[in-house]
Amino acid sequence: MTRKARRNPDPQMCKTFHSYREQKERKLSRTIEITDVILRDAHQSLMATRMAIEDMVPACEWLDNAGFWSLECWGGATYDSCIRFLNEDPWERLRTFRELLPKTRTQMLLRGQNLLGYRHYEDSVVGRFVEKAAKNGMDVFRVFDALNDPRNLETAIKAVKKTGKHAQGTICYTTSPVHTVDKFVEMAQRLVEMGVDSICIKDMAALLKPQPAYDLTKGIKEKCGQDVLVHVHCHATTGVTMVSLMKAIEAGADIVDTSVSSLSLGPGHNPTESLVEMLEGTGYETKVDLEMVYKARDHFAKVRPRYHAFLSDITGVETEIFKSQIPGGMLSNMESQLKQQGQGDKMKEVLEEVPRVREDAGFPPLVTPSSQIVGTQAVFNVMMGKYKVLTGEFSDLMLGYYGETIAPKNPDVVAMAKESSKKEEITSRPADLLKPEWETLEAEAKKLEGNNGTDEDVLTYAMFPQVAPKFFKERSEGPRNLATEPTPVIDKNHPGVLNAPIHYDVTVNGRKQRVTVEPV
Amino acid sequence: MTRKARRNPDPQMCKTFHSYREQKERKLSRTIEITDVILRDAHQSLMATRMAIEDMVPACEWLDNAGFWSLECWGGATYDSCIRFLNEDPWERLRTFRELLPKTRTQMLLRGQNLLGYRHYEDSVVGRFVEKAAKNGMDVFRVFDALNDPRNLETAIKAVKKTGKHAQGTICYTTSPVHTVDKFVEMAQRLVEMGVDSICIKDMAALLKPQPAYDLTKGIKEKCGQDVLVHVHCHATTGVTMVSLMKAIEAGADIVDTSVSSLSLGPGHNPTESLVEMLEGTGYETKVDLEMVYKARDHFAKVRPRYHAFLSDITGVETEIFKSQIPGGMLSNMESQLKQQGQGDKMKEVLEEVPRVREDAGFPPLVTPSSQIVGTQAVFNVMMGKYKVLTGEFSDLMLGYYGETIAPKNPDVVAMAKESSKKEEITSRPADLLKPEWETLEAEAKKLEGNNGTDEDVLTYAMFPQVAPKFFKERSEGPRNLATEPTPVIDKNHPGVLNAPIHYDVTVNGRKQRVTVEPV
Repeated sequence: MTRKARRNPDPQMCKTFHSYREQKERKLSRTIEITDVILRDAHQSLMATRMAIEDMVPACEWLDNAGFWSLECWGGATYDSCIRFLNEDPWERLRTFRELLPKTRTQMLLRGQNLLGYRHYEDSVVGRFVEKAAKNGMDVFRVFDALNDPRNLETAIKAVKKTGKHAQGTICYTTSPVHTVDKFVEMAQRLVEMGVDSICIKDMAALLKPQPAYDLTKGIKEKCGQDVLVHVHCHATTGVTMVSLMKAIEAGADIVDTSVSSLSLGPGHNPTESLVEMLEGTGYETKVDLEMVYKARDHFAKVRPRYHAFLSDITGVETEIFKSQIPGGMLSNMESQLKQQGQGDKMKEVLEEVPRVREDAGFPPLVTPSSQIVGTQAVFNVMMGKYKVLTGEFSDLMLGYYGETIAPKNPDVVAMAKESSKKEEITSRPADLLKPEWETLEAEAKKLEGNNGTDEDVLTYAMFPQVAPKFFKERSEGPRNLATEPTPVIDKNHPGVLNAPIHYDVTVNGRKQRVTVEPV
Repeated sequence: MTRKARRNPDPQMCKTFHSYREQKERKLSRTIEITDVILRDAHQSLMATRMAIEDMVPACEWLDNAGFWSLECWGGATYDSCIRFLNEDPWERLRTFRELLPKTRTQMLLRGQNLLGYRHYEDSVVGRFVEKAAKNGMDVFRVFDALNDPRNLETAIKAVKKTGKHAQGTICYTTSPVHTVDKFVEMAQRLVEMGVDSICIKDMAALLKPQPAYDLTKGIKEKCGQDVLVHVHCHATTGVTMVSLMKAIEAGADIVDTSVSSLSLGPGHNPTESLVEMLEGTGYETKVDLEMVYKARDHFAKVRPRYHAFLSDITGVETEIFKSQIPGGMLSNMESQLKQQGQGDKMKEVLEEVPRVREDAGFPPLVTPSSQIVGTQAVFNVMMGKYKVLTGEFSDLMLGYYGETIAPKNPDVVAMAKESSKKEEITSRPADLLKPEWETLEAEAKKLEGNNGTDEDVLTYAMFPQVAPKFFKERSEGPRNLATEPTPVIDKNHPGVLNAPIHYDVTVNGRKQRVTVEPV
């Protein structure tokens, strides 16, 4: 299997693949492409991004032969998790996927000017990262910004275009009085003007209902051109987004994201097998080979319980987010902040405060990092009085240091942020304030023990300066796998019976004995 | 709260409620009604029908005020479960619901000529059952037959009409080369001719995909009249049926079945809250008050884990049923039959044999009891040679004793069934062979200790002659609740740690000691 064997090596080809004319000629029969997220977002959403490469490798051949448009397998939180928890070089992971997925596009999630880190990077660092990712095997770059500020996407998109790879411009879907279909379509138009190869509607909180999914997809196709690929990414949390994918497809969506069923649903994604089956008889069809998906499903069904220590508790649906706008992760953060202060009873007040703070900040979508910033400020407002204390991050958000929001900010709160932070409000692109930093980063990185002298290592240091030193030092010990055999649990059909031996040190009358209790 | 307070006491009213003309005038805005199945099918599908009445009573006021078209709360397996496991009089349960749900229609599932038992009953018994159910508080009777033989529905439907209650004629949805949309629509037409108040599309195995859901609903509306209410019941097992509900609604469906989310998904139903949210902005809307549903959700979220001993293991999706046609319950039955014979390795052959046996039998839908009959014969064919041994039930199925199937049966196998059973093939309605039996049943029932002399007790004995004697004897002890506090489980975030004390008898060096291990 060589790279030349890849089914569709030219990322531009897909742009005309589903041309409107061709669809009409085929009389309503249209191929819907699928991106499977099992190798990235599925385990990020369901098992805290902890899956080790060795648990993914055995499924790669099946996944590669399943006929997916792409396999999302890198970026998001995986880079952080690799070096922080798994002692695994993320670049080596990327090269492994490239090698094992010769027929399928690789895909990553990139936070625009933040890359995979948590601050804005100067343009030359962004350029270097994209160049290296492309060189190590990345095909499709899904680029987004938490505030939907197109200026925070522009450098990354240009850099992807320069490599000849597929640049996907992303709209983070959210709802508010100012977030209308028209506004999102305008953003898509700006992204198309930047030269993106496709548009992604990214619904990270499962807020995208069927009707807006239809209207938004249709709006983008009408205003940006029927040939502009629309790629829809939904989570499953609220239980409505399988329907949203159907309506987006009816409106013309070209590609949808799903995940192999054994790692799907809950805060994860809609199941791949169900999406394929759902389309039967509709005139839409996929090229996915379910026999291959079943093999991957059986593999991950065995892997999943071994990560029990990291698995999400949620398996059903959660619909109150439509009202509260607060993602589950943010809820538990706020709860623990309150409890630490002995004010666990104030949760309801905080929940009511969040939308007010969000409005003051110009209605940012609530995703990392804006969700944490808004949530923490709401907690502070309830505990200490309205805007009595402003966090540094909230002041930065109010003053434009994360980018611009769709709605104007509350001028009174902007004034407080100026006073509290002693900073000025900015209207320029945040990264414009940064001085060239590659050489500094490179010099610092190369001083670290275990640094291998590559630009890739400089990028690891640049994005994770706190974590990189330990990782470089311990890298030679090789990847860790945090999965463990399931701890014994009580068999729920036979209360009192364990499903595996359990060992105790039992001290009886002062004598310690090793006792093994096992099912008989 | 009196019966007079019920929102819509006349079951006929709903028939014109959504008239086609009215919809057109309202310009696409249409109310979609919801039947919530939390009190019957939800716990039948997810916790083996074991929920005790005392765990349902606290939620009734919220459910009654949520604005549902009806609450399915009786019939199916609940009658059996009440007397077999819960020592609860099913008629008392019905009266309790009637009292606690004054504003909402009560609804039950009735197996046509089988009532809630496992054989055909003579018409006067069917009539008596329906009369008593209506008198004790039942509003809507969903009447079905496992073979879709309309003759097996006719007596029950006439009996319901006689009481003035709502008679719903049901189509069991299945797929096969002979099951076309036209054939199902023909069945709907026959049911309408019988005078039903509505048509139910019952998708017990989650096989109804979006396109057939649309075509079937549209076909029924076109051929039977736009005013004929179409009520769609889907399970969630395959992960596609939320979309099927949407497409059925677009095609004109009036009422859909869902379940409060804390007892939904897996082999259960689509979540009520998600269905309500899904419709936002589509022009379709429900009258459901989500605040009431949230209260019921929180209640059942607490109840659910207490039934851990009965909970279904399945929480994700299962899509291979589209190919195999074999429901999950049937699969595990066949597996255990094979294993008991030491032939567990023959499962694959059996899976391939099932569709052939089903074809020989004229493609019956695979539901109780046809699924067990076909599955067991397939196991016999693989273990002992093709039709070397015929079960009595399979012979009866082949010879028409369960009713007629949509496709002709394999004449060679019919001949074998005749020879094996020494019975003749029948083409008449199976219940026509039965002699009046009420007086005999009544006389037998009244001999039993604890019989209370009512017709209701005769019916209990008629349907469950093996179980009724013990139930009558023990009834005065009152209902049992089989729920228990959750057994201790290992906290998955802290492997090795239990979430509750666990007691062991540990024998060390021959001395037995009671040891309690508890979290510290």
